[in-house]
Amino acid sequence: MPPKKKVRRAKTWQQVAEEAQRHRDGTLTAFSHCLKLEELEQAKAASSNATQLPAQMPSVEEATLEITALSPKSLAKKIALGVHTASDVVSAFSTTAAIAQKAVNCLTELLPSRATTRAAELDRHIAATGKPVGPLHGLPISVKSHIGIAGCQVAAGYIAWYDDPTHVAARDALVVQCLERAGGVVHARTTEPQSMMQLECASNLYGRTLNPYNVNLSSGGSSGGEAALLAMRGSVIGVGSDVGGSIRVPAAACGVFGLKPTAFRVPTTGWSSTPPGADPIPTVLGPMSCSLEGIDMFMDVVLASEPWKVEPALVPLPWRTVDIVPSPTRPLRIGVAVDDGVVVPHPPIVRVLEELSKKMAALAHVEVVKFPLYKLDEAWAIGSSLYFTDGGEADIAVMNRSGEPMLPLVHWILKENPAVKKLTREKLEYWLEEREEYRIEYAEHWNRTGRLDEATGSWVDTVDALICPVAPGVATCHDTAKYWTYSAVWNLLDYPALAFPAGTADKERDVQTGRADFKSFHDRKNWELYDAEVFHGMPVGLQILGRRFDDEKIVAILKYLQDQGCVGHDHGPFNPIYSPVET
Amino acid sequence: MPPKKKVRRAKTWQQVAEEAQRHRDGTLTAFSHCLKLEELEQAKAASSNATQLPAQMPSVEEATLEITALSPKSLAKKIALGVHTASDVVSAFSTTAAIAQKAVNCLTELLPSRATTRAAELDRHIAATGKPVGPLHGLPISVKSHIGIAGCQVAAGYIAWYDDPTHVAARDALVVQCLERAGGVVHARTTEPQSMMQLECASNLYGRTLNPYNVNLSSGGSSGGEAALLAMRGSVIGVGSDVGGSIRVPAAACGVFGLKPTAFRVPTTGWSSTPPGADPIPTVLGPMSCSLEGIDMFMDVVLASEPWKVEPALVPLPWRTVDIVPSPTRPLRIGVAVDDGVVVPHPPIVRVLEELSKKMAALAHVEVVKFPLYKLDEAWAIGSSLYFTDGGEADIAVMNRSGEPMLPLVHWILKENPAVKKLTREKLEYWLEEREEYRIEYAEHWNRTGRLDEATGSWVDTVDALICPVAPGVATCHDTAKYWTYSAVWNLLDYPALAFPAGTADKERDVQTGRADFKSFHDRKNWELYDAEVFHGMPVGLQILGRRFDDEKIVAILKYLQDQGCVGHDHGPFNPIYSPVET
Repeated sequence: MPPKKKVRRAKTWQQVAEEAQRHRDGTLTAFSHCLKLEELEQAKAASSNATQLPAQMPSVEEATLEITALSPKSLAKKIALGVHTASDVVSAFSTTAAIAQKAVNCLTELLPSRATTRAAELDRHIAATGKPVGPLHGLPISVKSHIGIAGCQVAAGYIAWYDDPTHVAARDALVVQCLERAGGVVHARTTEPQSMMQLECASNLYGRTLNPYNVNLSSGGSSGGEAALLAMRGSVIGVGSDVGGSIRVPAAACGVFGLKPTAFRVPTTGWSSTPPGADPIPTVLGPMSCSLEGIDMFMDVVLASEPWKVEPALVPLPWRTVDIVPSPTRPLRIGVAVDDGVVVPHPPIVRVLEELSKKMAALAHVEVVKFPLYKLDEAWAIGSSLYFTDGGEADIAVMNRSGEPMLPLVHWILKENPAVKKLTREKLEYWLEEREEYRIEYAEHWNRTGRLDEATGSWVDTVDALICPVAPGVATCHDTAKYWTYSAVWNLLDYPALAFPAGTADKERDVQTGRADFKSFHDRKNWELYDAEVFHGMPVGLQILGRRFDDEKIVAILKYLQDQGCVGHDHGPFNPIYSPVET
Repeated sequence: MPPKKKVRRAKTWQQVAEEAQRHRDGTLTAFSHCLKLEELEQAKAASSNATQLPAQMPSVEEATLEITALSPKSLAKKIALGVHTASDVVSAFSTTAAIAQKAVNCLTELLPSRATTRAAELDRHIAATGKPVGPLHGLPISVKSHIGIAGCQVAAGYIAWYDDPTHVAARDALVVQCLERAGGVVHARTTEPQSMMQLECASNLYGRTLNPYNVNLSSGGSSGGEAALLAMRGSVIGVGSDVGGSIRVPAAACGVFGLKPTAFRVPTTGWSSTPPGADPIPTVLGPMSCSLEGIDMFMDVVLASEPWKVEPALVPLPWRTVDIVPSPTRPLRIGVAVDDGVVVPHPPIVRVLEELSKKMAALAHVEVVKFPLYKLDEAWAIGSSLYFTDGGEADIAVMNRSGEPMLPLVHWILKENPAVKKLTREKLEYWLEEREEYRIEYAEHWNRTGRLDEATGSWVDTVDALICPVAPGVATCHDTAKYWTYSAVWNLLDYPALAFPAGTADKERDVQTGRADFKSFHDRKNWELYDAEVFHGMPVGLQILGRRFDDEKIVAILKYLQDQGCVGHDHGPFNPIYSPVET
């Protein structure tokens, strides 16, 4: 555990940042001492795609590549069978994480002492009992840095909080406790942007997190460190957070999976000063992984620990089994929305979603339904009015305290967003009522995809899930991720949404056509950002979403679509060293 | 359906009240024309206990007594078998309801046209198909008047709203739709107090609702009309609402059952202007009935209609089956709290709860655990700060509009409660955080009745339910129900709570002993209110409650305790004409 820092007066923000980075670099040495930096620099220079770096470095052991290429279940199985020890696994992923840090700047620290101690404990357990302690036995877990880890700084991307001894977590966040009890090994903490309210990942503390598929582009954010680390195979399961797209946008940008669960399922105790249940738009924690398996395993073990007994805002629901068995009498009905009516997505997004629609429509007993997104401008007005009920005062005060500059995307969301205003109680209550009215209208909108069964009074034959873009483009050029609505509307509605890798941008096929008119200011801005050359080869992520508490259902439907070959199984298309699931 | 009222200028509040009462009386005539008023007056004069009035009136037909004495399931069975028609049943209950109105002033109107039309429809259905339309086929349903019935005034106990044509419900509340679709027949609307924020039931529109067991005492409130009507056997299932005790307090006072469900289970759409989900302390709707069967049937049919598809604030959970099978390895653990540490309840409450504890402790595999209630003063400070975030301004404005006087208990809660203040947004957010902190502390408090299973990280062997008083006394003398905490703390915590009749006050046994000191101002005040003579013979109600979403579990546990003979089955002890359930 890192030592607590003493408050020193008259430190500049640059000095604090330097201190943070020095601390981080210090934690890397335990695993990176054998890495040859020249090799790394050579490999980095050779390509803007960093995902193959470990494979390209002769000093990285074959075993490391082999272990980090396994899917979560395959890895857990091999550890349970004694093929690999937890210690070896932690070492392999920590080494890759150190490489990832040097390549894409995704870590705030490694936790070598904690991780190796825990791994040794797990190895002793399996030696003594022959059994794993739980389904995650030996799996490395990375955690976004605002989620408490005992003894570590919780900075939320702010210089002042990094430099504040009261911002040290007294204990692990509840979700971390759940994961470790199931056998997980927390080995890494990941970057997050200033204020955490960015869909990219830049802070004055650590700079920018880059995209492993093209280090000239953004990792996405705010859980950009997680997404980049996972894409580099530096972790198995990551814990991210999402209040407007912060799990899904980076997951999509980096070609990994990320679930924003329905609020009040995954515990948030220990992540911030606001107690769970008191926020107008609840921030949710959720899993990220290179594999859909990782999402499923995370939700299963976290809910099996009955966290609602400790965090009473949670709904007491275990992770339920949902079988997807489409039939002529009960077809699977998937809604598809290619654009939101305000901003037309970039060509790769449109193409990949249209291709997926065609593949789904060709399946037996699957119906693809055009689903028009509903009043998204209104949704954004409501949602962004409720993000900062104090008009951003508290955030601005934290930045002022250290004198750190406000970064462009924070300026965008706080200062250039006309909806962000300091609210009176009356206005807050007004927006809360608007939020509920919008939710009710959206329920009706969803119901209208089906019909009312007069006998039971229940709406039936509505779409089972909806697939749509996560954002109006792939990974962004730095400081350009300004249009939140594709992801943020589902936070306002509290619908579970799962980002998944669905294809790859291709400059030959994803050509921009001329457009005579634009739907909006944002539409024009977004269109101007497209460049087929720049985005070539980037992962194209989409999201599948369902109604509140349909978390299990959307995971099961995506699994079904994978099994039917409509979308890639796991992380496959982007990482040739990946081994498919062993069943 | 009553005609919409036109706005007339310069009406005094007394004229509006007179109009409301004239309208109500007009709706009674359809069923009360054969009632002999002299008989009624004679019977009323003979006793302050009104529950036997129908039986004491020679003009009331034997069939009416027979039908209204049946339990909900027995009645539904007899209608399904053709022993009784829905029309006869509606007629019987409406007749009794008319008597109830004349005895205890519990109605705002009967709905003769709507009810007889619906009953005839149901009779035709059963004649044509041989099958009931649903589990509630032909069962009369009464509805507290602030819950929308198409075409009817929604006044919330206010003169101005009664006199406001915009306060006519355009459609039935969602819960009413669910009940009618299952075969229910809405036949009566019941009284509610001015502002609905009273634990008694008095308004300037209709005056006071009285207690059927002693018309000199209060029915309790705010759902006092429902409780009184049910105790008079004028309805089978009632729809009440509860934000601080409004279902449970009158249920306990009148010897009936009343469930305050966990919030976001029973739909509230169509009851008020605040959309579901936007209130800091959510008002819940819930069932009231003379029988536990009625509670169970209501919850089952309402949730079977999947109301969450229309009201997205609801959690999509059907009414689940819970089996209570205590065993040596898994005993049933019931917490018991006799007093809240602030106000000692009156002798009948203490005695009946202690007797019940002894009976439960004597059962095999049942453990009775002393459960100290937790920081109830703090709970009240938080809860009552959040009831009127505008400091009561809107309520006062509505009263001022008509010039009606503020009634004493409204004055008590609005003006004499130091916690009721107009909140700034900052203060509102402060109290919301306090609310969540209290909920977290209470979860810990509950957990500490059990132990942490280190292997799973889950709290086990905690109490399964808690039994405690609903209020610090039985039915109150008028204008004295000022101490809310016994009931209101469970609204703040959002724990489901079920009031049930548990015994009868007895002047011989429930003697007041001298007390040298008092725990609080309220303790002394409450103690001064006791008079063994006055409360003799009154029902003693208690509540059983569980953690959030344990609604099914507490109903099942109470059923288990009934089956074991610890508490009376259904309404039995108080109504000798009641027939036990036929199985």
